[in-house]
Formats: sequence, structure tokens, C-alpha cells
Amino acid sequence: MVVPEKISLREGEGTRSSYELIRNVFLKRFSNPALNELSDAAAIGDLVFSCDSFTVDPIFFPSSDIGKLSIYGTVNDLCVSAGEPLYISLAVIVEEGFGRGDLERIADSIKAAARDSGVTIVTGDFKVVEKGKADKIFISTSGIGTRVPRRSSAGSKITHNDSIIVTGPIAEHGISVMLARKKIFEFKITSDCQSLRSTLIPLWKRFSAIRFMRDPTRGGIAASLNEISLSTGLGVRIYEEKVPLRKDVNAACEILGIDPYYLASEGRALIVVGRNDATTLLRVLRAKNPRAAIIGEIDKHSNAVTVVTRSGGERILDFSRALNVPRIC
Amino acid sequence: MVVPEKISLREGEGTRSSYELIRNVFLKRFSNPALNELSDAAAIGDLVFSCDSFTVDPIFFPSSDIGKLSIYGTVNDLCVSAGEPLYISLAVIVEEGFGRGDLERIADSIKAAARDSGVTIVTGDFKVVEKGKADKIFISTSGIGTRVPRRSSAGSKITHNDSIIVTGPIAEHGISVMLARKKIFEFKITSDCQSLRSTLIPLWKRFSAIRFMRDPTRGGIAASLNEISLSTGLGVRIYEEKVPLRKDVNAACEILGIDPYYLASEGRALIVVGRNDATTLLRVLRAKNPRAAIIGEIDKHSNAVTVVTRSGGERILDFSRALNVPRIC
Repeated sequence: MVVPEKISLREGEGTRSSYELIRNVFLKRFSNPALNELSDAAAIGDLVFSCDSFTVDPIFFPSSDIGKLSIYGTVNDLCVSAGEPLYISLAVIVEEGFGRGDLERIADSIKAAARDSGVTIVTGDFKVVEKGKADKIFISTSGIGTRVPRRSSAGSKITHNDSIIVTGPIAEHGISVMLARKKIFEFKITSDCQSLRSTLIPLWKRFSAIRFMRDPTRGGIAASLNEISLSTGLGVRIYEEKVPLRKDVNAACEILGIDPYYLASEGRALIVVGRNDATTLLRVLRAKNPRAAIIGEIDKHSNAVTVVTRSGGERILDFSRALNVPRIC
Repeated sequence: MVVPEKISLREGEGTRSSYELIRNVFLKRFSNPALNELSDAAAIGDLVFSCDSFTVDPIFFPSSDIGKLSIYGTVNDLCVSAGEPLYISLAVIVEEGFGRGDLERIADSIKAAARDSGVTIVTGDFKVVEKGKADKIFISTSGIGTRVPRRSSAGSKITHNDSIIVTGPIAEHGISVMLARKKIFEFKITSDCQSLRSTLIPLWKRFSAIRFMRDPTRGGIAASLNEISLSTGLGVRIYEEKVPLRKDVNAACEILGIDPYYLASEGRALIVVGRNDATTLLRVLRAKNPRAAIIGEIDKHSNAVTVVTRSGGERILDFSRALNVPRIC
């Protein structure tokens, strides 16, 4: 395969090319056990350490904004990695001329999200670049959490017949940002952007059979499931009729001709758990969100992600081939 | 004072307005003991946690580049805070169309700097924004270190008559980047960008009388000394003839009409230490860099930063009033 000389948008968007760029440019050079897991956060001793950058466009969208996103994004990366979130670092880059009122609104939002997630912002950085050298505001956060004892999220623990659970309806964040950007629709869809702390940490404590968790952000559940398949060499099978999807999200996706499996969530997790514990775990989840669901299972007889359609047919769900929605987070 | 409605470049550059913006927008909202110290890194129990963003322009400059800078910058923030650097998170934002070769060159540079500083890159993020929405590449890093037992860098420990030491000649990084950007001079000046780990950590272990350290980056030693004065309510007095300055740096500053006290270093530290230990500490430092020097002292009879000139006169050294050199790091 010829690698293009210039970096393209799709290489940052949860596509197969972004997966390959991360492997070829970064992992090849920095290889170490923690990084090589390519999980959402690094487990180092009793700590979990995570980071993320946020370049979402627009910076304000229904029910949320780049400030909340920057806290919940990193908090959730810790939570899916069995880390109880504690401390956050916050690095902000703004474009010259950015409104002070908007900056204060975002700072208020960060404050509320931090309180809501039980984290403390202990260190930070603030930089300004010339007009036209950045798009309004970019935020990078890192998070430190303490690991739930004897728990870890690791692809290597996944085995045949494990169940795959999603904690709630998918694709809400992606479609929310997309509609807010296009301004072509009358209706708005709220993002699912929220902290997963109170949902996931109790699960980690109770269920030792949890193998792996990931929050399906860029590239949607398609990217997350393909990463599971690639890293384990096993197949993933999901059932279309079981994947929870809000009606308004489904309608918007149909109008726009977008597959919701490629759209980001920012307040949901995929959980891979031993089959015997799946129903109990689901019952716990449903007390919080009645639309949590077992959507499929791991299948050793395949090495791809397969969707069983409502009509009983099967289709392969690959990473997105096209660019879906850039700058969703 | 009327606060302008739009954020200006100088608010990101180690000026008094940047100090005020950080207090009024962020500190006011996120107030907590670790953050309120406004030190280069947060001390949380046995850990030290730090973050920084890098937007330097140009991204390659004599002897260094944005990759090295992003590692050394965060490593040095840990070191001045008595933290032995261990783990780094790396978040990269590039502009669509950025050269893959340049990205690999920067990744090589990050790898070398990490090895040289004894840190491991354990987690990361990579995003791409549309052409024209960022200037080539921005990097954010966070770092975790373990605290040297019973040591901390705290303005509250600083007292009258404490000595102020600098670990080597100042302003090299600032002038290096400035010349590389302007392309108006034939000669090049190498940046001092380097890891301070092997210089500072042994000092922390040996000298309990170290009160405070800071690496004088944005805003130069003028900003760092003014922050010391502001946070302690004490005066700072330095002696022009004692401040080490390379001849070529001095010449370039004179030609450009720039005060080197406002220019960034990226491989130097200011150390505030009890007077009785200053000479011994300096001797240790000079074995590494013969130009390390005691440049002044804390003075309770003032609440400003004063420079005693070569002619014996005195002048007040304030934060920079003008914008010096934006995007120096």
C-alpha cells in the first residue's frame, strides 16, 4: 500500500487509516507494554493515566460544549480502563480574538463537569495563537485515576462467546454535533455527552468477568468493535435489532444517509464480559438506563465484525471507509 | 481596569495580563490547594502532575523542534516541582496536509527526548483538523513524576535574604526561535532546550533548603521573578552583572532591541535557596555548567523586582508590557 505523503483528515477520525497511522508513526517508535495495549488509558501500577485533545466544531452544541466534552472524554477514558477518576490537567489553546465571554462560559462548563465527575483540576496551561492559526479553541486534558483493585481492561482477556453490551443508545453525540454544524434541520438532537463514572466503576467493582470496556467515540461502535477484532484476532457478531438507537437519531441518520454505527457517542460504553455474567450485569445497567442491551458476542470462527440484519442476513461492518464527521470531539 | 472582550495574544505570553487571565478565568472557578499554588506542576500526595501545550513557530529551529520541546517542557515542569519524571501522555493535533515526513521526524525527536529524560510515553491521542484550522502541529503533553521525599517547590517557603540562582545563561531559546522565524540574520543561535532532570533532581535530594524552583519559559526571568514577588509579597533584587548571558545572545538582543530578561529559556531553572546553602549548591551546579550563578536575593523591604545595573543604578523589572515573542513554546 502506498502511504500518501500528506496527512489527511480521515487519519484522525477512527478509520482504519487512523489506526494504521498510530501504529506506524507512534507505536513503532514509543513501544512499551502500557502503550502497546492501545487502550483508552494506560494502566501503570495502581494508577490509570489517560489523555485526549478536543477540537470539536461547533464548540457549543445541544446540551453540551467543548468544555464538558473535554472533562467527560478523559473521565470516561479512565472509567473504561477501570480507573476511578481523581485529577485532571487542562491545557487550553485559543485563537487571538476569541470572546472572553465564551471562554468564561466554557470554564463554567468545565467546572460543572469536573464537580459532576468527582475530579479536581490540579494543573493547567493557557496559550493564545494568532488569528487564523487555530479554530477558536482547542482543549487537551489528561487524567489520573486509581485502579479498581485486580481489574483491568485488556483485549488479551477476551475469549470466544463473551457477550458484548452497550450501556445505552448509540450515535447521539455524533448526530447532535453534525446537525448543530450543518444548521440544515429545524430539530435538534441532544448529545449523550456525560460522565460514565457512576455507571462503570460499580460494575468494575462487582464483576470480575469484565474483560474489556471502550467508549465508542470517533468512528462509532464500528471502529471500537473492529479494534477489538483486530487486537484479538477474533470475530465480533452483533444483531441489528438489538442495538439501541433513539428514534430521532435513527430518523436523522436515515435522512442524511449515515450509518449510526459510525457515529460517536460520548457517554456510552461497550462492555465485553463473560457470558455467564452478562444478564446480571445488564440488569444492573438497566436500573440506570433501560435501553442498555446485550448487542452481540465474540466469535472465534471469524476474524471480522459481522452484523446480523433484521431480515436475518449478514453484512461485514468494517472501519469507516469514507470520512464520516470530522472534528466530532 | 476595563477587561477587553476579546482574548489577545499577550494574554498567552507570560505578561501580567496572562497572569491575570489565569487567575480570573480559571483559578477563580477551579480553586483547590494544588492548583492555587500556581506552580509548574501540582503536588498530589507522592505524585507530581504537570501539563503543557506547545504551539511553537517555526516547528523546527536550531538544535531542536516542537517534539523535543514538548517532552523537555513537561519533564522540566516536573523537575522544578521536585518530581522525578516517569510517565508522559502525548496529544497531537495536526493540520490536514501536514507532511508525513515531518510528523515522523517529530516523532523521532520525541522518542530521543523521552529516552534522554528517562520517561515513558504511555498514552496518547492524535487528531487532524481541516487545512487552515490549525498552524501545522500543536502538541500537548502531561507528565507524572514521583516526588522527592519531603521536598516541594512552594512560594510560601520563600523568606527574606534567600538567594536566587540560575542554572546557566538565559534567553537562548527565545532568541533562537525568534531568529529562526524572522530569517533576517545570517547567524543562528542554538536553543538551550534540554532536560533538567540530571541537574535538578540531585539538588532536591541533597539540599533541604531549596524553597522554590521555576523554569523561566514564557516571559523570561522577568515573568518568573515577578510571579515570585507577587505570590510572596516580597521583593526580588538581581544584579545585572551577575546574570549569565551568552555573547551571541546578547549581541542579537542588542541588535533587535529586546531585553533578554523577557526571553524564554527551555533548559534553565531559577532556584530560590536559603542563603547559607547557596554557595555549596552553586558549586554543585557549576560542575555541570560553569556559567551557573547566584544572581540576586529576596528582599523584604520591597515588593517589586529590582535590577541593580552595572553602573550601580536601579530599575524596576516588571512583567513585559508589550508582546515579546508569541508562540515561543
